[in-house]
Amino acid sequence: MRTLLVLASALFLSTCFAAAQTPSTLTLMPVPAKIQPGAGQLVVDQLFTVAVTGARDARLDSGIPRFLDQVSRQTGMPLNNQAADSAKAALVIHVENVGHKVQELGEDESYTLEVSPAHATLTAATPLGALHGLQTFLQLVEPTPAGFAVPVLTIRDEPRFGWRGLLIDVCRHFIPLDVMRRNVDGMAALKMNVLHWHLSDDEGFRVESKKLPKLHELGSQGQYYTQAEIREFVAYARDRGVRVVPEFEMPGHSRAIVVGYPELASQPGPYPPGRVSRDASALDVTQEKTYKFLDKLIGEMAGLFPDAYFHIGGDEVDDKPWNSNARIQEFIHAHGMKDNRDLQAYFNQRLEKIVSKHGKIMMGWDEILHPSLPKTVVVQSWRGQESLAAAAKQGYRGLLSNGYYLDLMFPAAQHYAVDPMSGAAATLTPEEAKRILGGEACMWSEFVTAETIDSRIWPRLAAIAERLWSPQDVKDAKSMYQRLDEVSWRLGWLGLTHESNYVPMLRRLAGKEDVRSLRILADAVEPTKEYTRSEVFPEPPVQRVPLNRLVDAARPESAVARNFAEIVRSYIESGYKDASAEAQLRAWLVKWQGNHAMLKPLLEGSFLLIEDQPLSEDLATLSAAGLQALDAIGKSQPLPEAWRVEQLAVVERSMKPRANLEIMLAPSIQKLIEAAAPHANP
Amino acid sequence: MRTLLVLASALFLSTCFAAAQTPSTLTLMPVPAKIQPGAGQLVVDQLFTVAVTGARDARLDSGIPRFLDQVSRQTGMPLNNQAADSAKAALVIHVENVGHKVQELGEDESYTLEVSPAHATLTAATPLGALHGLQTFLQLVEPTPAGFAVPVLTIRDEPRFGWRGLLIDVCRHFIPLDVMRRNVDGMAALKMNVLHWHLSDDEGFRVESKKLPKLHELGSQGQYYTQAEIREFVAYARDRGVRVVPEFEMPGHSRAIVVGYPELASQPGPYPPGRVSRDASALDVTQEKTYKFLDKLIGEMAGLFPDAYFHIGGDEVDDKPWNSNARIQEFIHAHGMKDNRDLQAYFNQRLEKIVSKHGKIMMGWDEILHPSLPKTVVVQSWRGQESLAAAAKQGYRGLLSNGYYLDLMFPAAQHYAVDPMSGAAATLTPEEAKRILGGEACMWSEFVTAETIDSRIWPRLAAIAERLWSPQDVKDAKSMYQRLDEVSWRLGWLGLTHESNYVPMLRRLAGKEDVRSLRILADAVEPTKEYTRSEVFPEPPVQRVPLNRLVDAARPESAVARNFAEIVRSYIESGYKDASAEAQLRAWLVKWQGNHAMLKPLLEGSFLLIEDQPLSEDLATLSAAGLQALDAIGKSQPLPEAWRVEQLAVVERSMKPRANLEIMLAPSIQKLIEAAAPHANP
Repeated sequence: MRTLLVLASALFLSTCFAAAQTPSTLTLMPVPAKIQPGAGQLVVDQLFTVAVTGARDARLDSGIPRFLDQVSRQTGMPLNNQAADSAKAALVIHVENVGHKVQELGEDESYTLEVSPAHATLTAATPLGALHGLQTFLQLVEPTPAGFAVPVLTIRDEPRFGWRGLLIDVCRHFIPLDVMRRNVDGMAALKMNVLHWHLSDDEGFRVESKKLPKLHELGSQGQYYTQAEIREFVAYARDRGVRVVPEFEMPGHSRAIVVGYPELASQPGPYPPGRVSRDASALDVTQEKTYKFLDKLIGEMAGLFPDAYFHIGGDEVDDKPWNSNARIQEFIHAHGMKDNRDLQAYFNQRLEKIVSKHGKIMMGWDEILHPSLPKTVVVQSWRGQESLAAAAKQGYRGLLSNGYYLDLMFPAAQHYAVDPMSGAAATLTPEEAKRILGGEACMWSEFVTAETIDSRIWPRLAAIAERLWSPQDVKDAKSMYQRLDEVSWRLGWLGLTHESNYVPMLRRLAGKEDVRSLRILADAVEPTKEYTRSEVFPEPPVQRVPLNRLVDAARPESAVARNFAEIVRSYIESGYKDASAEAQLRAWLVKWQGNHAMLKPLLEGSFLLIEDQPLSEDLATLSAAGLQALDAIGKSQPLPEAWRVEQLAVVERSMKPRANLEIMLAPSIQKLIEAAAPHANP
Repeated sequence: MRTLLVLASALFLSTCFAAAQTPSTLTLMPVPAKIQPGAGQLVVDQLFTVAVTGARDARLDSGIPRFLDQVSRQTGMPLNNQAADSAKAALVIHVENVGHKVQELGEDESYTLEVSPAHATLTAATPLGALHGLQTFLQLVEPTPAGFAVPVLTIRDEPRFGWRGLLIDVCRHFIPLDVMRRNVDGMAALKMNVLHWHLSDDEGFRVESKKLPKLHELGSQGQYYTQAEIREFVAYARDRGVRVVPEFEMPGHSRAIVVGYPELASQPGPYPPGRVSRDASALDVTQEKTYKFLDKLIGEMAGLFPDAYFHIGGDEVDDKPWNSNARIQEFIHAHGMKDNRDLQAYFNQRLEKIVSKHGKIMMGWDEILHPSLPKTVVVQSWRGQESLAAAAKQGYRGLLSNGYYLDLMFPAAQHYAVDPMSGAAATLTPEEAKRILGGEACMWSEFVTAETIDSRIWPRLAAIAERLWSPQDVKDAKSMYQRLDEVSWRLGWLGLTHESNYVPMLRRLAGKEDVRSLRILADAVEPTKEYTRSEVFPEPPVQRVPLNRLVDAARPESAVARNFAEIVRSYIESGYKDASAEAQLRAWLVKWQGNHAMLKPLLEGSFLLIEDQPLSEDLATLSAAGLQALDAIGKSQPLPEAWRVEQLAVVERSMKPRANLEIMLAPSIQKLIEAAAPHANP
């Protein structure tokens, strides 16, 4: 991969570049800090063995067989798994120190991987670094004419940020543990190290509480993790170098808590169990019993989650429940506070003492930021770099989530371009800048189920993982996409379903095996962006809405539309002379133009597809316009203004949400239309 | 589905046919004994509920939530799962009797399913019938313009044979329990009812033995099921109406036994553990200690497997170990036996007494058949209907496996055409005919792993399931294939990987995301048939041979080749006048002709694909010949004999195994060549 080598060479003496193997096909993601390419390769065959020297750690002891199993899965080769001493092993791992008992923020995650034609050496200060190095090795194993092999090279690698997280919301839709586990596997493959588990919200409280059992009994609709399951999951994540930070939302987003304990609510309720709605709820933070309750809850949960950080949410506290409670308003007045925000600050101060008492560092969303809180508190910013920089200037540590919301269906490149140190954060002093710990992608689960969540997380999360791990100047989107396409299918070896569930979901929609025409449409559309999804069904609780429509099957980012846009760009840049680009565009447009006739019977045969009929029609119409445009450009015979106006109306319509989808080719076809019918100057 | 309705109408008064909904899209497999179509449909929405009346049984109690979960999975709709009484439920199930404590051969499996626009009723004599009826219901749920729905109809159904089995060999390659379980789910979906578990063979003894622990400790390479796992699996299968019949091979195919207990072998050995080879081995059946050992083994295993039947193998006893042991030959002589076959009969007689003593009915392969055995013994025939009929005439019960070997890579239609009651079996008296219990498909595992086994079993097993369940006159292969194509992807909802593993395996071969050109080749070839597979690797034990080649990814039956053959047939039958057929053929041929140029870089880049280069070249050459043929036919200008000879040489080469693959389009293209260059009469 030329781009990667260019990247690598930028970090090295240019002489290294001359030694590079050609042509390189490295698919490393995230890009390592430093790569020194070499000549030749290390063959990975059935006799491949691993030996360990130096410190021993349980994570390494379980990580090595898992690594070997993964080599087998990727290559389809059973390994002989013979024991090998370090003198004979194909890969020797040397770790200097055992890690901390509980994985810590800022532990050394660096590693060095040296590959020669005879063997490879992986050295790391801690087992965490070794685990990362093994993932790099796995990415390097590829089929070559001489067998599966790893290229000769030296990699010295370390993360740019110590906090590289993914939030998974298991409240709006419950996500079973097997899905959680395979996503942790995916995170580890991309060197991410924090799973932020959003465990309580209005729609559900997802943890068994032995001390406050009505939390899960009444607040979870029966969908929760037992404490044994949580312990097992935390250990699973730890084995893979991933910390688990739990989040319990308070004082807002707390309906699931007051279902079982209505006496904590700011309004009398009732809060019937089972119903899950968007009713505003907020804990009554003026009562002492609320703090007694939270002390009990946090004490129990602090024991269950070993991580040093404890997230208390704290965002979007609705004013209504507090405003309409006279006693609460009196309390605000009596204590000399000026508004509800002051009340929340008061709450957070008291909460922080409880969290500290139980040995944890408190984290929360932007809204918790208040000078009354100690500087140990960590702020997670859904608002952006400005908010983050402001916190850092006040002495608080923080991480960025704004720009990393996977549920908003933005393309990978858009997330990739978001840097925690950009904007206001770029102006921080070195000391302040150190307070930016990293970032977290967020997977809010209003519109995902166990079936679809992988397809929203992957492969786009890999772009965010690279942003948080790789050097700041690694930012070429084209290189990122080339590698992302390869990383995506390889993630399938971990059981992730983002690719494998696509066609089955299309077949469900059609009730038919042959969904070629439906796939052509699905490949050309994307779910609408941001918070634009509307549901056609009458208001059931969010968890009961069927997520079985084309918008649920469609990928967040259409690779077909991305590639088509690329070809249109080449074609235009060539001054409409690139015949190969023209031929490719024509082939696509012909296919799309003819697709509606084939797809129509499927669309008419299934109630789930009827809503997609206008999209399919417009795809055909747009493509016809694109073909007319190509013809006109080819003959240098501009088309009339009336044609242009007519076609641009179709373009405009195609970019508007229908069935919660947008036709992503529209902007590219628009360029062809405008080229074929240049706007007449007045 | 016209064919199905024709079938149905053949079984009913023709007046029923007039009432049929149009156009039917029923995808029932196996075809029920009797279908009476009606008008309208029962909508299956989120309020769908089930109620049970009559006898209660644990299998039904667990089967109903599983059924509802399956409805959710198929439709992508969470169900509200509200309790419903029988007056309000959408589906009411009435079962007359609880079943036997251990599921028995010949238990009533019939059911009646009546669907009206308001609700459905499922009645059955036993829970087994109800489980089958639920599977039928699941197959009927399809998207329609008015929602997911089941058509109004009445089905009265029962199996033709009581024994509808699948043998899975877990010795040549160990098959993990999750793979076993999903295959049992698939069997249940197709109303199969016996899992024949081939648990011991030369390559491994796969069951934990507490009484004879060296069996699994030394004979399994660490790959075996614990007794707890076996109990759990047997209960899992029972819950789904599937009996589990264990097979322990003796006196041949017994190397894994003598690894731990060499004193039982006919030759002194040594039999080192871990090495797995094709060394001939046979138990020394002249020693009393062998019978003491078998008494212990069978006693323990009889307690572990509740089924009434116990399979002792008995096939392919190699003469060498017995011939070269003087003491054994002396024993034969001293006891007035004439040869090794008599010795095996002596062994089987004694073995049968042991098996009986432990409360089981002995089963074995053809070779055990000997008049000295009691008539209770059941013979499984790998030899064919003649052998089966001979056994039935002698009073023995039997089942057919000849013609149902899935590992031989034959097309579904070939298995479908094999009827247990055909050939010699067709001449049996009614009483003798009753002794033919049914049949069993066999999945021998020399060349499958957990990754590929599903793709060898499915979807072809569904055709065998239909043969064994449906009326004998249900035999239209075209209808079978139409339904098979739909059943195949639906089996994916059970987690079966026969479709989902295909593209990932191609990507592994290429090491690339974009495998469109490789897929075009893979779609056009099939693994060679029967026992023709040869390995290019030097003789490792069978379990260590990497099964990661194109032959492992390729499907046993190429749907593309089947469809292409169909179009060629239409084209020829139209007197070369069917322009649409001609256009379709041309489109395929153009694609194949151009494919090699695109595929070449992938083939050259991976050591795993180099062997497929000649196939890709010949596919292009064949297609060029096909296009020349079409041109010549279109212009009515016959091509010369020299051209014909040259092209037929390519056809011949294409049908010969290379890289263990055959180009399945070759016979169809041959027809075009012969039409374009008719053989000159001498």
